[in-house]
Amino acid sequence: MRIGVFYRTDYLNSAKEVYTKLKEHFDVLFFKDSSEQLSEVIGGELVEPKVVISVGGDGTVLRVLKKVKCPVIGVKAGRLGFFSGYLLTELDKLVEDLKCWNFIEDRRWMLRVEIENGTFFAINDAVLQKDVEQKIVDFAVEMTDGSFFYHADGLVVSTPTGSSAYALALGGPIILPNVEAFEITPMAPQFLATRSLVIPSTEKIRITVNDTVNLVVDGDVVGKVREIHVRKCSKVITLLRPKSYDFSTSIKEKIGYGKMVLKNGSE
Amino acid sequence: MRIGVFYRTDYLNSAKEVYTKLKEHFDVLFFKDSSEQLSEVIGGELVEPKVVISVGGDGTVLRVLKKVKCPVIGVKAGRLGFFSGYLLTELDKLVEDLKCWNFIEDRRWMLRVEIENGTFFAINDAVLQKDVEQKIVDFAVEMTDGSFFYHADGLVVSTPTGSSAYALALGGPIILPNVEAFEITPMAPQFLATRSLVIPSTEKIRITVNDTVNLVVDGDVVGKVREIHVRKCSKVITLLRPKSYDFSTSIKEKIGYGKMVLKNGSE
Repeated sequence: MRIGVFYRTDYLNSAKEVYTKLKEHFDVLFFKDSSEQLSEVIGGELVEPKVVISVGGDGTVLRVLKKVKCPVIGVKAGRLGFFSGYLLTELDKLVEDLKCWNFIEDRRWMLRVEIENGTFFAINDAVLQKDVEQKIVDFAVEMTDGSFFYHADGLVVSTPTGSSAYALALGGPIILPNVEAFEITPMAPQFLATRSLVIPSTEKIRITVNDTVNLVVDGDVVGKVREIHVRKCSKVITLLRPKSYDFSTSIKEKIGYGKMVLKNGSE
Repeated sequence: MRIGVFYRTDYLNSAKEVYTKLKEHFDVLFFKDSSEQLSEVIGGELVEPKVVISVGGDGTVLRVLKKVKCPVIGVKAGRLGFFSGYLLTELDKLVEDLKCWNFIEDRRWMLRVEIENGTFFAINDAVLQKDVEQKIVDFAVEMTDGSFFYHADGLVVSTPTGSSAYALALGGPIILPNVEAFEITPMAPQFLATRSLVIPSTEKIRITVNDTVNLVVDGDVVGKVREIHVRKCSKVITLLRPKSYDFSTSIKEKIGYGKMVLKNGSE
């Protein structure tokens, strides 16, 4: 089995540790996060890994998920780690699980974001945001059923996966991963319109702005726009998790939401 | 065509106005909101109306929707009127629309709430709430994927329809009516767990409480419980709306969410 190891450059030492451990058991391809293609020509043959291990934080997992067709496993070397299944201290378990392919396949979907001259895919979110020096802008969100308007600093369009990321920080709900919906959450809207809007995943929406704003997809500024079209993307991405994984435990551990409060007041 | 008129007792005069107008064109059956059955035995035959007109507020519509199998039309004589399609001043239009059956059929679904000795149906929400003098309670919400805990005054389980009702007042999102999900919103939870949880409508949840609390279904206290089971109910209810109706306009008009803000600062 060929396994790719993809790493954020500043986690090179951690990545080497993963590489060394996996190399004892598998063919390993080693890619840094600036790598364009996660495949290699070996002996005249284009070799794609069966799975890619991402060493870094959630941002690293997001990047690798968009580069490959194969599943991805996150080894946590950054913050939070919603996408990580294993710690650096759990490499023995990772090797065993790889040998027996003993994983939960956690499938997530993306939003397809179209602008005039390009298409982007958002695993977490697509954010329209004004510059700091820019005046507050007007957003119009149009869909089958009608339209909503926001006079705000920005709008976050997020998947269920992204509902525990930036949208949550702005007051949005936690949307379980298997809900067929996405949400819009305004940033600093006027007239108390702070609530998120939950929209069926079958809907195609168009957002227009009365001024040019930044388009930020999964944390990367990708352009300046006045109009975007957003809908669910048909491509599915797959994270491999240890069999012990469940979403609710992850949410409780990472952000403390829905955690049991013990009688003595501690958590 | 036989039409029922159902009214809240304190809107008797408005109901009589509706009755008198409709009587010029249709067979009309007249029911006050304490009526058990909305059918009448006329000439030895059990007569059910083809449609029932509800005269009152949203509470009146909620009550009649649970009593009948036929569609319901709300004539607004109360507050807000999310469920109302016509004003008392629009009775001529109502008559014309009835004659041509010129309506949008707005289908909504309910939650089925089971307790030890009974079943209830919630169009908006089922609320578990402690008494004022009672200490803060512990809620455990269990579902396929795991469990969440809340140390709070109460929990609101609401449909998309109910997302613009009590859950919204507690900070929840607006869920479009055609989203296949319901939500849990905690009331005054400890440790900042104020966010709503959006759950797929295919899920069956169990909520247990460490003390007996009130169960309030669509605004009516129906019992004291320590455990409830909630899932989507297969029965669909139908509101008839004028052809001009759309949900987004309704939300903008009723609560001002997503309304365009004009340049002079007025709305």
